Amino acid sequence: MTRIDDVARLAGVSTATVSRALRGLPTVSAATRHRVLAAAEQLQYTVSPNASRLAGGRTGTVAVVVPRITRWFFGVVVETVEDFLHRGGYDLLLHNLGGRERTRQRVLRTADLHKRVDGIILAATPLRAPELAFLSALDLPGVIVSSGTNVPGWPCVRIDDVAAARTATRHLLDLGHQRVAHISGDPDDELAFTAHLDRRRGYREALRSAGIRPDPSLDIESRFDVDGGIRATEELLRRGDPPTAIFAACDEMAMGALTALRDAGLRVPDDVSVIGIDNHYLAGVLGLTTVAQSPTDQGLIAAKTLLGALTGRPADPLRAADGPVVLPTRLVVRETTAPPRTPESAAR
Amino acid sequence: MTRIDDVARLAGVSTATVSRALRGLPTVSAATRHRVLAAAEQLQYTVSPNASRLAGGRTGTVAVVVPRITRWFFGVVVETVEDFLHRGGYDLLLHNLGGRERTRQRVLRTADLHKRVDGIILAATPLRAPELAFLSALDLPGVIVSSGTNVPGWPCVRIDDVAAARTATRHLLDLGHQRVAHISGDPDDELAFTAHLDRRRGYREALRSAGIRPDPSLDIESRFDVDGGIRATEELLRRGDPPTAIFAACDEMAMGALTALRDAGLRVPDDVSVIGIDNHYLAGVLGLTTVAQSPTDQGLIAAKTLLGALTGRPADPLRAADGPVVLPTRLVVRETTAPPRTPESAAR
Repeated sequence: MTRIDDVARLAGVSTATVSRALRGLPTVSAATRHRVLAAAEQLQYTVSPNASRLAGGRTGTVAVVVPRITRWFFGVVVETVEDFLHRGGYDLLLHNLGGRERTRQRVLRTADLHKRVDGIILAATPLRAPELAFLSALDLPGVIVSSGTNVPGWPCVRIDDVAAARTATRHLLDLGHQRVAHISGDPDDELAFTAHLDRRRGYREALRSAGIRPDPSLDIESRFDVDGGIRATEELLRRGDPPTAIFAACDEMAMGALTALRDAGLRVPDDVSVIGIDNHYLAGVLGLTTVAQSPTDQGLIAAKTLLGALTGRPADPLRAADGPVVLPTRLVVRETTAPPRTPESAAR
Repeated sequence: MTRIDDVARLAGVSTATVSRALRGLPTVSAATRHRVLAAAEQLQYTVSPNASRLAGGRTGTVAVVVPRITRWFFGVVVETVEDFLHRGGYDLLLHNLGGRERTRQRVLRTADLHKRVDGIILAATPLRAPELAFLSALDLPGVIVSSGTNVPGWPCVRIDDVAAARTATRHLLDLGHQRVAHISGDPDDELAFTAHLDRRRGYREALRSAGIRPDPSLDIESRFDVDGGIRATEELLRRGDPPTAIFAACDEMAMGALTALRDAGLRVPDDVSVIGIDNHYLAGVLGLTTVAQSPTDQGLIAAKTLLGALTGRPADPLRAADGPVVLPTRLVVRETTAPPRTPESAAR
């Protein structure tokens, strides 16, 4: 059987270079890679990937941990990361926590992650103390996407959730709304990472800047999804004296609000304005006004940063010491927001 | 260093059983697993997963190949499969083809799949001849989800796309529509697997059964997504004498149709009825009438079948020889379909 030494000798390079070239790592020049591939072909050498990884301590695999792959944001992050990592010669091991404690424990505490992957991308998953200790002890490179816990040495890419919420709330205030409700995530829900806390803060800040005292009866916690938005809006309507505008902490909650308002016979934006955060791929179909963020950009920066750490050739100067990379958001006005009805317009 | 032989001796089982027990495979009884875990703990033995896989020829990993993870159907399939495989002790290696020829080649022709994974789930990806030859030669267990090419020996789970399309078209005909348009996938598009061909067949069959000759000017190919639905509907409207109803080959195309109709100033269902196939998680938000399929059920059966093949203990009697498992679909009537306007109703 041909061994890696034979290939290295024929190509005139070290076995480490053969290994890197065959794994397609970008640290090998095109000329060298070509020479190694020619030698491997001549000798009919094939790599056993697991063996090569054991020997080099490399697996050629990156773990991506997301709360739920079926959510628009995480689907786009995973698609973007997978594409970029594939180009760099890495496969993606998907861990979808899905709100299951068992999966969470398996992945974040007892899994043999350090033997299976070379690096980790952790999206919107706040860590508990033992999980943080476990991940830190792995001594693997990692990147955090979206808010959550910091892992020492892991860079983070995110948006400014407080500012995004201020923008959304201010848009409603600028239109003339005074009774602005907020529907957001439930802290006990698996999807309610920490973004929703920052978004509530932005909502309250914007109200106070406009001289409006936040009204707790207009602030409802629910699931961070369509059903949560439906239930929170139904609760708002049950309380009587409904708001003239609703700021939902994410587009899927906003879509739930649209559904509940329609079922209650209320017109959007005539009776109630609705705004979300995300720019979900179906926001345009629904005419939903929103504050847009880009999961593509967040995933791309995360993947570039991790690949840089893995290959020892940082593609971007994103280091943990620099603090999080904060990407911009922007207001996208569509058809679900308008000035509140005046007594005259209501009579029409 | 403790070796697997030491654990086997202390537990009184073979090294193969130790290996299976530590990987959590269901072929080991609870009592034996308990004994092995106790022995491993006493001896402070930890597995190197890659080493154990090399030794046993097992990787503990399953590859899932999908056209696009960001599409609702594939997101749900992957989430379902991942959960079930995790319970069985397997990790999921995600291959998102994303319409990229390079990725396709890497995964379906030149990848070292047989060294990296123990099995494959291939969703809605028609194979070309060399890819089929490559996958067959791997001699790995596999399962096909949704229509596509058959791989010899791989069971398949799907819906009856012809019947689903007949149901959708018949619903429109039963409401009294005569000019029923169809918008569907473009065969050159990466997402236009083969489902859309079967769906067109069902559309034409239903028309002919009602004595209506399919009108090519009402049958438009486009991308199998929201944008494709928008463009196909705009094209329908440009052709003049618009249809009174549109059957879209999937819900996302139907959502595009709703968008284009709204932008053209047409009301749904007053001016035009719209129906899709899927029951996308936002179909309810849009009030979209559709023919529902369940990616959860399809993913679950695929995962169960593959795990059965991997553990030598088939959970379900799904064998390739039996032909595909065909899951039911059902009509879900919401608010986007109604009888066509009569001259009298139009005048109102």
